[in-house]
Amino acid sequence: MGSTPDPVAARSVVRVRVRFCETDLMGIVHHGSYPAYLEVARVEWLRRRGVAYGEWASRGLHLAVAEMNLRYRTPARFDDELDVEVVLGLLRAASVRFDYRLVRVGGTDGGALVAEGWTMLACVDGAGTLRRMSPEVSVVLERAEGPAASWIAPGA
Amino acid sequence: MGSTPDPVAARSVVRVRVRFCETDLMGIVHHGSYPAYLEVARVEWLRRRGVAYGEWASRGLHLAVAEMNLRYRTPARFDDELDVEVVLGLLRAASVRFDYRLVRVGGTDGGALVAEGWTMLACVDGAGTLRRMSPEVSVVLERAEGPAASWIAPGA
Amino acid sequence: MGSTPDPVAARSVVRVRVRFCETDLMGIVHHGSYPAYLEVARVEWLRRRGVAYGEWASRGLHLAVAEMNLRYRTPARFDDELDVEVVLGLLRAASVRFDYRLVRVGGTDGGALVAEGWTMLACVDGAGTLRRMSPEVSVVLERAEGPAASWIAPGA
Amino acid sequence: MGSTPDPVAARSVVRVRVRFCETDLMGIVHHGSYPAYLEVARVEWLRRRGVAYGEWASRGLHLAVAEMNLRYRTPARFDDELDVEVVLGLLRAASVRFDYRLVRVGGTDGGALVAEGWTMLACVDGAGTLRRMSPEVSVVLERAEGPAASWIAPGA
Repeated sequence: MGSTPDPVAARSVVRVRVRFCETDLMGIVHHGSYPAYLEVARVEWLRRRGVAYGEWASRGLHLAVAEMNLRYRTPARFDDELDVEVVLGLLRAASVRFDYRLVRVGGTDGGALVAEGWTMLACVDGAGTLRRMSPEVSVVLERAEGPAASWIAPGA
Repeated sequence: MGSTPDPVAARSVVRVRVRFCETDLMGIVHHGSYPAYLEVARVEWLRRRGVAYGEWASRGLHLAVAEMNLRYRTPARFDDELDVEVVLGLLRAASVRFDYRLVRVGGTDGGALVAEGWTMLACVDGAGTLRRMSPEVSVVLERAEGPAASWIAPGA
Repeated sequence: MGSTPDPVAARSVVRVRVRFCETDLMGIVHHGSYPAYLEVARVEWLRRRGVAYGEWASRGLHLAVAEMNLRYRTPARFDDELDVEVVLGLLRAASVRFDYRLVRVGGTDGGALVAEGWTMLACVDGAGTLRRMSPEVSVVLERAEGPAASWIAPGA
Repeated sequence: MGSTPDPVAARSVVRVRVRFCETDLMGIVHHGSYPAYLEVARVEWLRRRGVAYGEWASRGLHLAVAEMNLRYRTPARFDDELDVEVVLGLLRAASVRFDYRLVRVGGTDGGALVAEGWTMLACVDGAGTLRRMSPEVSVVLERAEGPAASWIAPGA
């Protein structure tokens, strides 16, 4: 069960740039570097809806990754800029699913789909125990980006 | 299509120990640290079948991660020893799937399932182009651990 | 031997934001996360002087870290914004030294010095052999930020 | 001030193996991967003297890195085995210095010095406040490896 959020309100696009240390000897971004991109985008998704995730975490309110799926489509390379599209895809009593598409910005194949995936997150307290989401949390997750959101540089 | 390898021959167990830097502010292992555990175990799986993966890579023969799935069951913590069970689950013309189960060694819940998942790997050349597996590669992937395998410390 | 660059031209400030995965179980940024911040800032320092470091690297021209020193002054925490001040401190025939100061942006102790350090970089070719810097490289390293530099979001 | 520990008792050698994800597009180990090797070796150094560092950390007793220096001598590559020699070099009231040498095992240049460096660690409590080392800690730091130490696989 659970509800499917409004896809327009539920969407944000967060830009990241590939770091040198995120590449491997194949000359491309290592597959293990992508969870950080999803995480950066997720944290920024919350910020644009008025929430500093660190403030939640310091109060013992965590959205812990319970499952992660990533499909790698085209290699990303050092210094590429990637637009990470984050969409809240499913909202349940104690968990949420975020869906992601990573698209290259610029370059000869600008707009190429680099990777896509999703993460299922469980709402847990400081001891790791599953908790139903409080109304405070649900309200944030159903919110659209604030009006100034597109101006906020994630710096991520 | 593809064949299902013999589950006994296709299985190895590789022990890793959690590093301090792999934890996060929740006090547990960060979900993004697990791809490295799978990778270490996969490289060791090959070594126990006589292959130094670095030697393959230097000849432009790569098993690139095309898709990854991870389900987190119970948190792992700093200094935990984890047994990563790796099983070659599917063998196709140009790709393979490895399945993983990470189990805690020792502790009060020794044997607890920490995480499980799978990776689909594509056989690609140095330019990233998909290649059918050569007989050399297929033979290795169908091999069981060598007799000395259990004595080899992965040091991973 | 070597020359000391003009300290005004040689300076850039690059903002980064701490990622969740860069923290550890002490609840602060892990000391091993800082080399990435220095690297991001160094790459952006070059970009603001007209150079895409990836383009250099693809031509086999590398500035490889030969020595690194980091002094940790005050912990940084998840989601902190840090201004990384990068100054080219020394320019020699085949190596350069960059000096860094990481300062917290905002917060109750905004402006606090989080860490400082330096990296000595050697100019090497694709085979790792030390090379004297070409005039092309020296000219870039003696350049000041371009006029548009302050508008460029590092997205790092 | 401070004392120089007995160099024989103060020394351990811990073997690590380079992971694929620790390399970069230059085809060698990224300089930012080394702090993890030092950390793994330091934790194992303590274990061989009877201490589980995680147990200290869970009691709010931390040896936090206050300064780090690394000199890179020869590139390490994927799957290399490295012997990390750790020597407690200086013992003070509230801090210690560990010295490191990383040497390649085997290969055509087996025994080659890959990197060397040191870390200054401060003894702090859970709030990050500097604390004099308790006698319990000092005793451990002055201890030699236990008799069984050489049999313990770090698994790191």
